[in-house]
Amino acid sequence: MAVYTEVSDEALRAFLGDYDIGGLVAFRGIAEGVENSNYALRTDRGDYVLTLYEKRVDPTELPYFLGLMDHLAARGLACPVPVRGRDGDALRELAGRPAAICTFLEGVWPRRVRPDHLAPLGQSLARLHDASGDFPANRPNALGPKGWAPLLEGCRERGDEVAPGLVAELDGHLAGILAAWPAAGALPVGQIHADLFPDNVFFLDDAAGRPRVSGLIDFYFACTDLLAYDIAVCLNAWCFEADGMFNVTKARSLLTGYEGVRPLSLAERAALPVLCRGAAIRFLLTRLYDWTHTPADALVTRKDPLEYLRKLRFFAQAETAGALGL
Amino acid sequence: MAVYTEVSDEALRAFLGDYDIGGLVAFRGIAEGVENSNYALRTDRGDYVLTLYEKRVDPTELPYFLGLMDHLAARGLACPVPVRGRDGDALRELAGRPAAICTFLEGVWPRRVRPDHLAPLGQSLARLHDASGDFPANRPNALGPKGWAPLLEGCRERGDEVAPGLVAELDGHLAGILAAWPAAGALPVGQIHADLFPDNVFFLDDAAGRPRVSGLIDFYFACTDLLAYDIAVCLNAWCFEADGMFNVTKARSLLTGYEGVRPLSLAERAALPVLCRGAAIRFLLTRLYDWTHTPADALVTRKDPLEYLRKLRFFAQAETAGALGL
Repeated sequence: MAVYTEVSDEALRAFLGDYDIGGLVAFRGIAEGVENSNYALRTDRGDYVLTLYEKRVDPTELPYFLGLMDHLAARGLACPVPVRGRDGDALRELAGRPAAICTFLEGVWPRRVRPDHLAPLGQSLARLHDASGDFPANRPNALGPKGWAPLLEGCRERGDEVAPGLVAELDGHLAGILAAWPAAGALPVGQIHADLFPDNVFFLDDAAGRPRVSGLIDFYFACTDLLAYDIAVCLNAWCFEADGMFNVTKARSLLTGYEGVRPLSLAERAALPVLCRGAAIRFLLTRLYDWTHTPADALVTRKDPLEYLRKLRFFAQAETAGALGL
Repeated sequence: MAVYTEVSDEALRAFLGDYDIGGLVAFRGIAEGVENSNYALRTDRGDYVLTLYEKRVDPTELPYFLGLMDHLAARGLACPVPVRGRDGDALRELAGRPAAICTFLEGVWPRRVRPDHLAPLGQSLARLHDASGDFPANRPNALGPKGWAPLLEGCRERGDEVAPGLVAELDGHLAGILAAWPAAGALPVGQIHADLFPDNVFFLDDAAGRPRVSGLIDFYFACTDLLAYDIAVCLNAWCFEADGMFNVTKARSLLTGYEGVRPLSLAERAALPVLCRGAAIRFLLTRLYDWTHTPADALVTRKDPLEYLRKLRFFAQAETAGALGL
């Protein structure tokens, strides 16, 4: 579920009084999302999403996230736009939590990814990278290469409970990934989404019945990192079938869509395999950490770390972009 | 959470093709609700709620529930209206589950019940009872008096793990309740909601800032039983404060609101204390049963049975409606 904090009627009323967005018409919890509490909010002026930021979000980082959404929306990217209160502030407090209201985005996230989702996804990702080019703030990627060794340390004691020999295998993968990781300055850096899974991308059909991206959401892992790493996240998150097979057609469509907007350099293309290994170990490690640190009776869905072990192994045997079919 | 069944894009598209409600615009899981999967569905014609009925709902009973909502809405009660497909059927199938689309209701359920919610609640409940008077179908209350002894048997082995001596205490309460329960024919019978908790009642403020009921939802415990038993459920669900104290002001407002629409007979009023004990033991027993039969790691919020033990004890010492302040 994704409502961790309940909001009293009086608190909500007082909170909405700080905005000029009309009177309350409806207020429902949204099931999607695992980090924060999200509510669908309707006023007599329109639809919004109210987010209460829960404890895994660092409040000092919220201005970066909200500022980035504001910046991207001003440049025409379809993403939630933080709504400012009467005093001009978008980041406020409600029920003892940092909170913000953003605009509602139409669209449906794909429960099953089809090949024709990938080119529009790639185009949107490239537009995000282009639009964030002049964003003035930076946020280091806490879940980037420097964060992986500490995460693995945190899993050392109990990681093998998930699969025998897992920790030793990950030690080997991680050493290889870090040794091959692009040197500072070798690849273009900018603001990346860093978590562009299918449930963060809304689609609508165009008049011809083809899917187009209607919005990107959930910028709360966004950070400053290699632009091509965002592609590697998508190759992990969008291009494997349920049986674990890598779908080269989807991967090619993603790249083609992306390069239609922002062509990759030769260095970026050459780095894709190691970036894919990095993205695989990043999601593997956070899932493994949660798996080994979350009580089995917690009201949180623990995601399977081994899904990403299979992806990591696949990318580890693909030494070139050509071996990935790219 | 309240999304147990995921719906693929193709299945959703095919499903919507059986309706004449316009094209898909948005589709989000709703966090509220524990029995079924609920989605907020938007088309270019309006807003709807799509419900997939999960395994605790008996599919053969769905025509009763949907028919009752249809009947009540036709008589002016604000409740979800089942939307019929092109073939005239409202009850359909999606993702291997029985499924129905109903209209969306505006309003907000009260996270904290105020005294001024109670009179409008009472009015709405009485209107529901009046409007269902000529409903042609019946559904026995499986969670009524005849169901309580079997439920308690199911808790006998492990019930005392929740509180020492609990099962013996409940044996005593149940014998007393069943001995004092109104004889068949003694009180008016009709279609009741039977689960009218605050999260099933939406409110909006009128022009003067007073709450009015904008809709009643979740008719999936509705059944044919004593009308006054529905009041007893509300006295349990709406009239206790967080500290466990019974709020007589709220209880009086509920009754006053109800009787402004449908006056109670002397026999109904005299029966209220035992009906309240019955409603208390009904919610206590289902919670106790769930508590002792749900694995601790299940992704379901187990509700505290002891909240209703305190309510049961309170009603047990109040032998007359006067002792309840009514």
